[in-house]
Amino acid sequence: MMKILLDCFGGDHSPEANVEGGLKALEAFPDLYLILTGDEASLKACLEGKKYDAARLEIVHAPEVIGCDERPIDAVRLKKESSMIKAIRLLRDRDDIAALVSVGSTGALVTAALTRIGRIRGVIRPAFCPILPTMDGGLVVICDSGANVDVTPEHLRQFAIMGSLYMENVYGVARPRVALLNVGKEAEKGDETHQKAYELLSQTPEINFVGNMESRDLLSGSYDLVVADGFSGNVLVKTTEGTALELLKKLKKDIYSRTIYKLGALLMKRMFMEEKDFMNYQNYGGSVLLGTCKTIVKGHGSSKATAVFKCIEQAWKMEQNALPAKMEEIIMKYDHYEY
Amino acid sequence: MMKILLDCFGGDHSPEANVEGGLKALEAFPDLYLILTGDEASLKACLEGKKYDAARLEIVHAPEVIGCDERPIDAVRLKKESSMIKAIRLLRDRDDIAALVSVGSTGALVTAALTRIGRIRGVIRPAFCPILPTMDGGLVVICDSGANVDVTPEHLRQFAIMGSLYMENVYGVARPRVALLNVGKEAEKGDETHQKAYELLSQTPEINFVGNMESRDLLSGSYDLVVADGFSGNVLVKTTEGTALELLKKLKKDIYSRTIYKLGALLMKRMFMEEKDFMNYQNYGGSVLLGTCKTIVKGHGSSKATAVFKCIEQAWKMEQNALPAKMEEIIMKYDHYEY
Repeated sequence: MMKILLDCFGGDHSPEANVEGGLKALEAFPDLYLILTGDEASLKACLEGKKYDAARLEIVHAPEVIGCDERPIDAVRLKKESSMIKAIRLLRDRDDIAALVSVGSTGALVTAALTRIGRIRGVIRPAFCPILPTMDGGLVVICDSGANVDVTPEHLRQFAIMGSLYMENVYGVARPRVALLNVGKEAEKGDETHQKAYELLSQTPEINFVGNMESRDLLSGSYDLVVADGFSGNVLVKTTEGTALELLKKLKKDIYSRTIYKLGALLMKRMFMEEKDFMNYQNYGGSVLLGTCKTIVKGHGSSKATAVFKCIEQAWKMEQNALPAKMEEIIMKYDHYEY
Repeated sequence: MMKILLDCFGGDHSPEANVEGGLKALEAFPDLYLILTGDEASLKACLEGKKYDAARLEIVHAPEVIGCDERPIDAVRLKKESSMIKAIRLLRDRDDIAALVSVGSTGALVTAALTRIGRIRGVIRPAFCPILPTMDGGLVVICDSGANVDVTPEHLRQFAIMGSLYMENVYGVARPRVALLNVGKEAEKGDETHQKAYELLSQTPEINFVGNMESRDLLSGSYDLVVADGFSGNVLVKTTEGTALELLKKLKKDIYSRTIYKLGALLMKRMFMEEKDFMNYQNYGGSVLLGTCKTIVKGHGSSKATAVFKCIEQAWKMEQNALPAKMEEIIMKYDHYEY
């Protein structure tokens, strides 16, 4: 039995969407055992009348909720009875629990994970890794996108190793193409850290390093994994999301400005729906924290049931494929310190 | 008479577009004197039959051209007879020349400017500053976007001062809203450099600092100037351009996939043209290098005549408003070292 924790609060559609996604996962994975955290009465109300295998579902009462506007460090310290922090404690304390899925505050989850959950042997720093759709129908993972604002070349190599194994084992990409985010393609671009990282990545046969990537090529489909320091990785991901959103908003506004445009848009309705669907990150799964010894998946705050299900599926696949053990095996071959 | 150098080669539409844009500027600004650099015979051929005030135009023969694929440092060192490097030398040596406009290789131009042209008194590092349109019809300048991959808080303060004066004097924005690019809004976000920069910016009454900006808000219209280290500033600008371009490409491809979509798009043709126009950076002027003692404007490689004209107009406005002197005045009030 694979035991996975599901934090049922903190999202825009919580707890209904979380519970519904959880039940879907129970149906899809016969070896899955779910532990829901959150207000027991609310969770029971959500479960009422639903059909599911009660022997594989458990509720742990946690009456508090962490809001997305709370300071992460305070939330982690003070809200011990929240659905998220209670789940983190269970993940830390119980050997039989493999993973945690949450759609709550990213800051609180990353802070709690980094301070409460141990790292895989050899891993210096875990990385927070979102996934984006590329224009050719593929996917690209960014590793790291905010957990570490200061990095060394060795951190970046570890991100590359962990991200490659993730793409291979969870998304079935053989020999994922790894790029280093930089200000130009040439090996000598960027600061010393990036120059040295380029060198290290080139000398790591376990990964398929294809060179530096300029940020304008993120969505081109030429890369499966982009390695970055948390600061510029964060800028990369948020700029992409922001630009896409602002453009869609503008398009919509402009369409409504004239009747003939509205008419034209009517003919293209299905296409626009598909574009919107394409850009909806809910369809691609959540962000994962790579490098902690227990698997942690963070779904978007606006996740509906399908998105929650996808996140559980991700966690299940990571554990099913023994990702943490595989990471440890490769990382231990190289220099690792500070841990 | 204001003397401005116009590098007439290195762009996709050179030299025709450069010459045409130059002549337009001569007509618009009666106090402008243009010095064209490039192959004399080609330039004379472009000028043939055109009407212009010959007393305010001069050609300096420079037979070589720097390609955009050449290594900047080699190009600057070896191609002394190129239209760009010859222009840089003239800018350095002749006190009567105020500015340089080029649409050639960005890397070569920035390298040449940083190594050959002096800085404004007090300026530690010049910054490369592109401008982007925001969704509410405004503009936003990013300062720096690639000239400095390593920065200190003091550099960032200087970028803020220079960028504010630029927005005020060239684009007429009163009290430009200055933001610091960071991974979150709170003052304590980011690494030590960004935390300290936040503090310094808050303590600089000459600028209107409004706090940290998350990259997803770049195009929102809430900011006139974004201060960033050259690495993440570069990621910010290139990701925005890349995402917009990839999305438009996808939209176009999808439209062509079905007849009914093509029909719909036909009705929206004018709107799509306007969107394309809106996203065409040629309409907003070039990137400027702020902090060198002579004004340098870099237009996009694909600049046509109007874009070249806009770049000359920018340079003219900067000099007309005595921007370098104003920058020096404020910057000298604060700590400045290393120069």
